Amino acid sequence: MTDTLNDRLADYTAVAAELGVDAVALVPGPNFARAVQHPFSSHERPFVLIAPVDRAPVALVPNLELGSWDLVGFDGQVFDWRDQDGYDAAFGAMLSALKIGSLAVEGQVMRVFVHHAMLRAQPDLRIVDGEVAISALRMIKTDADIEAMQAAIDISERALAITLESVRLGQTEKQVEQRLVQALFAEGADGLAFSPIVAAGDGSARPHAKARDDYALKAGDPLLIDFGAAKNGFAADITRTVFLDHVTDEGRAVYDTVLRANMAGLEVTRAGVTAHRIDDVVTGVLEASPFADRIRTKTGHGLGREVHEAPYIMRGNHLELPAGTVYTNEPGLYEIDNFGVRIEDDVLVTEDGYKSLTSFPKDLTVLKC
Amino acid sequence: MTDTLNDRLADYTAVAAELGVDAVALVPGPNFARAVQHPFSSHERPFVLIAPVDRAPVALVPNLELGSWDLVGFDGQVFDWRDQDGYDAAFGAMLSALKIGSLAVEGQVMRVFVHHAMLRAQPDLRIVDGEVAISALRMIKTDADIEAMQAAIDISERALAITLESVRLGQTEKQVEQRLVQALFAEGADGLAFSPIVAAGDGSARPHAKARDDYALKAGDPLLIDFGAAKNGFAADITRTVFLDHVTDEGRAVYDTVLRANMAGLEVTRAGVTAHRIDDVVTGVLEASPFADRIRTKTGHGLGREVHEAPYIMRGNHLELPAGTVYTNEPGLYEIDNFGVRIEDDVLVTEDGYKSLTSFPKDLTVLKC
Repeated sequence: MTDTLNDRLADYTAVAAELGVDAVALVPGPNFARAVQHPFSSHERPFVLIAPVDRAPVALVPNLELGSWDLVGFDGQVFDWRDQDGYDAAFGAMLSALKIGSLAVEGQVMRVFVHHAMLRAQPDLRIVDGEVAISALRMIKTDADIEAMQAAIDISERALAITLESVRLGQTEKQVEQRLVQALFAEGADGLAFSPIVAAGDGSARPHAKARDDYALKAGDPLLIDFGAAKNGFAADITRTVFLDHVTDEGRAVYDTVLRANMAGLEVTRAGVTAHRIDDVVTGVLEASPFADRIRTKTGHGLGREVHEAPYIMRGNHLELPAGTVYTNEPGLYEIDNFGVRIEDDVLVTEDGYKSLTSFPKDLTVLKC
Repeated sequence: MTDTLNDRLADYTAVAAELGVDAVALVPGPNFARAVQHPFSSHERPFVLIAPVDRAPVALVPNLELGSWDLVGFDGQVFDWRDQDGYDAAFGAMLSALKIGSLAVEGQVMRVFVHHAMLRAQPDLRIVDGEVAISALRMIKTDADIEAMQAAIDISERALAITLESVRLGQTEKQVEQRLVQALFAEGADGLAFSPIVAAGDGSARPHAKARDDYALKAGDPLLIDFGAAKNGFAADITRTVFLDHVTDEGRAVYDTVLRANMAGLEVTRAGVTAHRIDDVVTGVLEASPFADRIRTKTGHGLGREVHEAPYIMRGNHLELPAGTVYTNEPGLYEIDNFGVRIEDDVLVTEDGYKSLTSFPKDLTVLKC
């Protein structure tokens, strides 16, 4: 457990050493937030924190952020720049002072304009994608992390209950989404972890469907809701699929298959299990069913400051999950022009098993509405 | 005015020709949304749409997005990939089929992992940052764009009125923020254009402050609220600063200066004015005041699908603004450990002047609360 900004920067220095590069660069996003414990965003302005192996850290900070930057307790050198002057001179000054030959960056976070600005300032700088090693520092959640995630999940589950109570046939997907979002904020969300998916009928067959304002809920529809609150910098990510008024035999059979897959994944979860093994068991249940041709996704992904983060729960990923990992167990079956079902829990890996941070009921539910 | 996906892709082909490269690549984000008129996000999965100069467009699509992708009416070749297989083979197949030597990308949107994946697939591919030219296609708003922005702004202004009515001394910044967010969704927002800034007292001196849950509003505080709804893919971005219970002479003088700067910017706005000229006039008012040392930012930025987009309203940017541009006019004065004031309007440039899309009163307001 690290406590100070310098301790946390030392974690990134260790990553640089592990990767055989001279430094690690972070830009606003989840790793930056972990390091400085304060939310920053970047928009069009480069903002870079660099932890070198053998000297003090430096930061390139937009001038208008200096007041907020003062709050993080950074004692390294700061190269600030003003909109009027542009940022090339600041990159030049920073890289001249640093004297590094190679740099690991977050490939999933850093945008190309920052990459190019660094290469303009130092054309021989070797930039490598250190995403996996850098973000791995976020994989084992601290107690404080888990507390924040549980708060996000509890808010989300209360909002889901409120939303489902208000669902009526004839409402549009969009109306259900609006109700859900209002309930999330009323229950204490800081924000939305992502744009919610509220999909009924054939819409549920698209894993990343957007709520339609021209589709009215009808009897027999599955209603798939995939959503989450953001709270204190952490995300919830939950899916439940319910049926409206009644459920067909096909709907019931698909739902039961997905639920068995979800449960099978939970059963093999404990510290040391590989991501491959969980997906193999979960997807194996789907493959052994009559609905194998409806498989479209892997089992899930890590969850924390980002909605999607390491570890990715998929065959071929032989990473052994340490205790403290939180992942989404979200099997689904989707048939285009017919319907889809997904059930998603947020699962904490423990030494001797798991703890599901989600507790919303997942027995097949038919809403009389 | 372009109407079909192929028409819009032809716009990007024209940009490629203008930049002297063989193709333009778009990844999920505002330009991608303009092109396909459907919201997509990318997370950890590469998703790339390429418009080459002399052949049909192609797309690299995550397999689980194929159902949603079918909705956009794309008739080019699709290279899909599944999580289990990774995406390198799809990039290889796509670039082999394309046979291009150079590619312009959106530097502010594309992340380094996609850049690196393309270079793994084709090490001699020349990738240039085409951000400015690519995003310039979004600068002149269509009537439909303006309608969506006005809807976002109207929602935001109603939410601000509701929020200010409920402000009471002793509330925390965080409580005011929660009220604002709930009001935004109750009034019809699809989402938040960005994380709102609700900053009172010394917090108002930090241009990008975050609402505190341990700061209670007190008599004499300025209360700065910078926020916006997202609606139909477009953003609002509005700031008002009010004073609680009473205003000091210093507060009044600073406020009047900022308001004069804002008005001076409006007065010179018409089609053909340069971004430089607007900022020069606005910042000139601030510089001529006793508070010149409190200037921290440029005048503003373009507004549309992104909260911050071209044109950036700053000295040195000699771009002549065409009719149909929407920009934020947001002068401010900030003194660390004292307070800050910002007033921000969303301004449509017209042939013979401007239309302020924001209409919330900006006379100095003292809330008796």
